[in-house]
Amino acid sequence: MSGLIYEQKHRIKYYECDATKKISVPMLLNIMLYVSGKQGKLLNVGDDVVAQHGLSWIILQTEINVERLPKANEEITVVTQPQSYNKFFTYREFKVYDEAGELCVTTHCTFAMMDFNKRKMVRIVDELVAPYEVEVTKKLVRTPKPEIVDQEAAKTIDYRVRYLDIDANQHVNNAKYLDWFLDSLGLEFIKNHELKSINVKYEKEVSYGNWVQCEASQKVQEDGRILTAHQINNDGITSCEASMTWLPL
Amino acid sequence: MSGLIYEQKHRIKYYECDATKKISVPMLLNIMLYVSGKQGKLLNVGDDVVAQHGLSWIILQTEINVERLPKANEEITVVTQPQSYNKFFTYREFKVYDEAGELCVTTHCTFAMMDFNKRKMVRIVDELVAPYEVEVTKKLVRTPKPEIVDQEAAKTIDYRVRYLDIDANQHVNNAKYLDWFLDSLGLEFIKNHELKSINVKYEKEVSYGNWVQCEASQKVQEDGRILTAHQINNDGITSCEASMTWLPL
Repeated sequence: MSGLIYEQKHRIKYYECDATKKISVPMLLNIMLYVSGKQGKLLNVGDDVVAQHGLSWIILQTEINVERLPKANEEITVVTQPQSYNKFFTYREFKVYDEAGELCVTTHCTFAMMDFNKRKMVRIVDELVAPYEVEVTKKLVRTPKPEIVDQEAAKTIDYRVRYLDIDANQHVNNAKYLDWFLDSLGLEFIKNHELKSINVKYEKEVSYGNWVQCEASQKVQEDGRILTAHQINNDGITSCEASMTWLPL
Repeated sequence: MSGLIYEQKHRIKYYECDATKKISVPMLLNIMLYVSGKQGKLLNVGDDVVAQHGLSWIILQTEINVERLPKANEEITVVTQPQSYNKFFTYREFKVYDEAGELCVTTHCTFAMMDFNKRKMVRIVDELVAPYEVEVTKKLVRTPKPEIVDQEAAKTIDYRVRYLDIDANQHVNNAKYLDWFLDSLGLEFIKNHELKSINVKYEKEVSYGNWVQCEASQKVQEDGRILTAHQINNDGITSCEASMTWLPL
């Protein structure tokens, strides 16, 4: 816990919510990443400056812990702080609070830098990170892997990558994978369970027009929570893995 | 042109944009409708008050004219004004300006009131409209119909209604139809053409889990613009029709 803290308020709009009137998790991820992007901009190392180096930030892993998902019309405060960085990775925490100051969501993200043209990871460029005043370390942070899909119990749904799934990086936006994972569980499941955690690991980018296979399996844990495990395969290669925990309502 | 004018500024976020870095039209529609919803709220006839009558506003038609679509980081001003209402319909205008005060987008919407449980249109409830100080008229406003799909030239793509396509009204959100229409034209078409207008007519609501057929045809108009015509069919019934005009880039 070392870098500069930045925070921003956000009023949740109706159209940022799902059928349950709570903020959709993909939208919440978008908002959190917007706030960290804003911090970079204020420190003069925003996405435009990173792009001048031929680079862009990519997310490798996101772990989200949910106390409760806020609803339309609530004003949330997103607080973010870079935690440390090493040769290849940077680590950042997000906390989302409601108007009463109660913690709603905690998120940890692992980022890396990508050469925009070669589409390959590169070493972190120190001058693009220094303004955050964050600790340099030789240590890799050990992040838990998502639980693996139970192939015998798995259901598969195919998704064609659509025009609005693609962002300005010309690949499927990080938040869109969550759309697929959630949709693959079905509306009835989502209405009857409360999301408690998500762990998403991004492996390979997915492009426009690709058809991906989204596998999902469910099992009941000892603590009564439901564990759902997810995997996106694109032309035989795993693009993304995730697992979530849910409380029955 | 008669009712109270309301305006609100909005800073366009990266995640509200598409692969071309311009605001996505479905998101712009969301934002415009949010601003008119906000006006209702400030006048004490917001969606919550409408819901207390067992009603909700539905959109029947949207006509959007585009001067230019603003980009990420621009601050837009959305100005909205109810224009008139009669027994069954209300009419509202939206104008979107950029920071230099230049007009970017003009939109006209036709609304009606729906009985939330019966899922049927009802007469406009005067007390829910009176605070807007808008002209009551016996006249129906004649709105142009969308151009019809050329069945011989049409291509069809099937879409399954997903979890995040559904809003708190438990049907496909108005903006989501635009996702389908745009996606059915393909990313290459969108990158090589500039959208100039959209006319969308909503006929029947679509529910979660439905599979819809989205037909689209294209033709070159005499003025050199491309006309695209679109139709959503759900189990043999037309749910939505639209046409758009585009300038080749």
